[in-house]
Amino acid sequence: MDDIFNRQQSIVIADVQVDGRTVDIFVTEDGIIGAIGEGVRNDHRGDADLIIDGNGAVALPGLVNTHTHAAMSLLRGYADDMILQDWLSQKIWPLEAHLTKGDIYWGTKLACLEMIRTGTVAFNDMYFMMEEACRAVDEAGIRATLSYGFIDLFSAEKREAECRATENLVRHIRSLNNPRITAAVGPHAIYTVSPDGLKWCAEYAAEEKIGIHIHLSETEKEVTDCVAQHGKRPAPYLDDCGILTPRTIAAHCCWLDEAECTLLGKRGVSPSHNPSSNMKLATNRAMPYHWLAAAGANPCLGTDGCASNNNLDMFEEAKTAALLQKFFWNNPTLLPAPEALTMASKNGAKALGLSTGRLCIGAPADLILVSTNVPCNTPLHNTASNLVYSCSGSAVETTICNGAILMLEREIPGEAEILAQAAEAARDLVKRAQAA
Amino acid sequence: MDDIFNRQQSIVIADVQVDGRTVDIFVTEDGIIGAIGEGVRNDHRGDADLIIDGNGAVALPGLVNTHTHAAMSLLRGYADDMILQDWLSQKIWPLEAHLTKGDIYWGTKLACLEMIRTGTVAFNDMYFMMEEACRAVDEAGIRATLSYGFIDLFSAEKREAECRATENLVRHIRSLNNPRITAAVGPHAIYTVSPDGLKWCAEYAAEEKIGIHIHLSETEKEVTDCVAQHGKRPAPYLDDCGILTPRTIAAHCCWLDEAECTLLGKRGVSPSHNPSSNMKLATNRAMPYHWLAAAGANPCLGTDGCASNNNLDMFEEAKTAALLQKFFWNNPTLLPAPEALTMASKNGAKALGLSTGRLCIGAPADLILVSTNVPCNTPLHNTASNLVYSCSGSAVETTICNGAILMLEREIPGEAEILAQAAEAARDLVKRAQAA
Repeated sequence: MDDIFNRQQSIVIADVQVDGRTVDIFVTEDGIIGAIGEGVRNDHRGDADLIIDGNGAVALPGLVNTHTHAAMSLLRGYADDMILQDWLSQKIWPLEAHLTKGDIYWGTKLACLEMIRTGTVAFNDMYFMMEEACRAVDEAGIRATLSYGFIDLFSAEKREAECRATENLVRHIRSLNNPRITAAVGPHAIYTVSPDGLKWCAEYAAEEKIGIHIHLSETEKEVTDCVAQHGKRPAPYLDDCGILTPRTIAAHCCWLDEAECTLLGKRGVSPSHNPSSNMKLATNRAMPYHWLAAAGANPCLGTDGCASNNNLDMFEEAKTAALLQKFFWNNPTLLPAPEALTMASKNGAKALGLSTGRLCIGAPADLILVSTNVPCNTPLHNTASNLVYSCSGSAVETTICNGAILMLEREIPGEAEILAQAAEAARDLVKRAQAA
Repeated sequence: MDDIFNRQQSIVIADVQVDGRTVDIFVTEDGIIGAIGEGVRNDHRGDADLIIDGNGAVALPGLVNTHTHAAMSLLRGYADDMILQDWLSQKIWPLEAHLTKGDIYWGTKLACLEMIRTGTVAFNDMYFMMEEACRAVDEAGIRATLSYGFIDLFSAEKREAECRATENLVRHIRSLNNPRITAAVGPHAIYTVSPDGLKWCAEYAAEEKIGIHIHLSETEKEVTDCVAQHGKRPAPYLDDCGILTPRTIAAHCCWLDEAECTLLGKRGVSPSHNPSSNMKLATNRAMPYHWLAAAGANPCLGTDGCASNNNLDMFEEAKTAALLQKFFWNNPTLLPAPEALTMASKNGAKALGLSTGRLCIGAPADLILVSTNVPCNTPLHNTASNLVYSCSGSAVETTICNGAILMLEREIPGEAEILAQAAEAARDLVKRAQAA
């Protein structure tokens, strides 16, 4: 049975619901959606390598997580309920100092496993030792845009090292020639990267025609410090450095004012909303989704790393986003369920420059099947509402990326080994840190 | 295999984690925890009717949902993303007007199924045609405190009818003589029940020595209207009516001021936090958990009905509570994971006057097993943190209530029929409402 997983083959997916209609889907050997409609199973019964019984499941484009630090899955639950600065300086950084290549590999494997299980087929990651993340993503079968977290701490010497590390990762990813893995530049944030570092990142990304992944306006302190130092708020400051482009994903964006939202819209930036992380760390303000959407920006959704969420479930994140927008901006009609789903799929795909995020003929077969034979999807008055407000990622039963089956009826080959190895890596990491 | 479900029998649960230790648990034929510790499996191997392999799962007291309208599961996803008043008057009330006894039965069956699946063993419900809810709870095997939603709309005639309906339900529940089902009085809220109605409820509940289930300070309007009408805020007004007692569960409590929290503490009230519902309906303020806890009230947790959440997953609700408290009150150390778990279990049990909510010898065997062989529980640095921030109810694999097995390794007998019947009831309900 394992030989049907993670390979190219033509597939008929029979009896699924797409936009309220019961249809079949044909996936070509090249991993493209070849047909959607009634009777497709009969047209392709002869030439399909495999037939999957959808059993009335809802078929959706696979979700796209636009802000993660995947390997931090090893730090899940290591420290919580603390003040941000204490949490970082007393817990997270001391542990991160002991991370090995093996940890990055197993942490990213665990993250990919969790994403596949909860219906995510692509993610936008920023961390370090990213060659190990490449290996994990390659094996897992999902898509990723990977960036080295560029942190020069305003030192010219360190900046040179960060530039070389960035170039090396981009070169490495190009050499893999894996259509599922792309490179981005990852200037961490305005408070960790010098203006020269930011400008270099912007120019290098433009030359290489690759994305930019940055944290923006997560806390109020970031804004007040920026105004004090540069005489302007973070978004116009980043714009001066050339960072705001249609290839840019800006995570958090909690403290943007209306003019900054207009600027992000004008530049075609994709702001990644990370509501669970923002709530847990008490950022005290929610990303102004309505201003960003009205300004023509491309609001998308991300979970952040497992140290500050603490999971990678994009269904849960879509619910939290829809609830937080309503609550913070005091309007129960804000971010209705269909828009929250769009953030988690189509907008995320657009942010990463992927032609996925929708179910239509000719699109890559990045799709998931969500069970309807579960309490959270019963009754089924409104699909979008159930998916966002009622179901979690646990309702996903099948995940397909680039035409390859990664999970079928909740089975993922190799899961037990990944869980065991990741758990062991995490235990060893804590031991090393405590011994130091 | 089905004959091991929903019956009294002695059970050894081998290899589970309790408070960080690996132990076995012995459940007596009477549904009581008879032993917890290492080697218990050997002591009781001879006299146990059944041995369950816990396989390293975390054993927890079953969760207690202190505010639901269970039968509203049939309305899940029927209407969302609307202004409260439009949502009620255009969508919810017109549909509720067509609910039949069969709908209440299948809606409550569906709710119980979802609760069992997500680790909840007891709930506090307010709705109507509650004799049907009794039947559903009796069959499902979980515990419930059931109240008739007393709404007199300030009419003396209607008040008489509501008093009789309340008395009838209490009499009916007494006649069932089911230790898992208890009655409460359910004055809906200060804006739907007259002062005389509230006083009658308080006196009747005291006479009968049963609980009171009421909505309190959900919206700011409730507070301003109350002050305008009665010259005082809702909590002191309810206190004048005798409603605030150690047997009282007050749902929502979003807009309590500090003096009201002190009053609730003094009276020993259990405020039920319902964060998902509050966020979705944009109440614009979060229950002041820290004031209530400091005042000695018994803060507990509830999901509210499926029309405004839209699920009954208490693990998800515990996470939302922990995140919302931090975010709204702007302090990342508020409501840490262990306290959120306590709200969802021990405090909930106390609110309902149950001797459950803890795992110790002599307590009723209301317990759940949460898998550790899943990504959300890997690694396991901190159990409480994983349970609250990472796992949803989908990580629950076994649910035991009053010593009876309700779910074993995710299998619940009769699930398919309940899903099918509830879905059909919901479809018919919408048809009837549309035809009217």
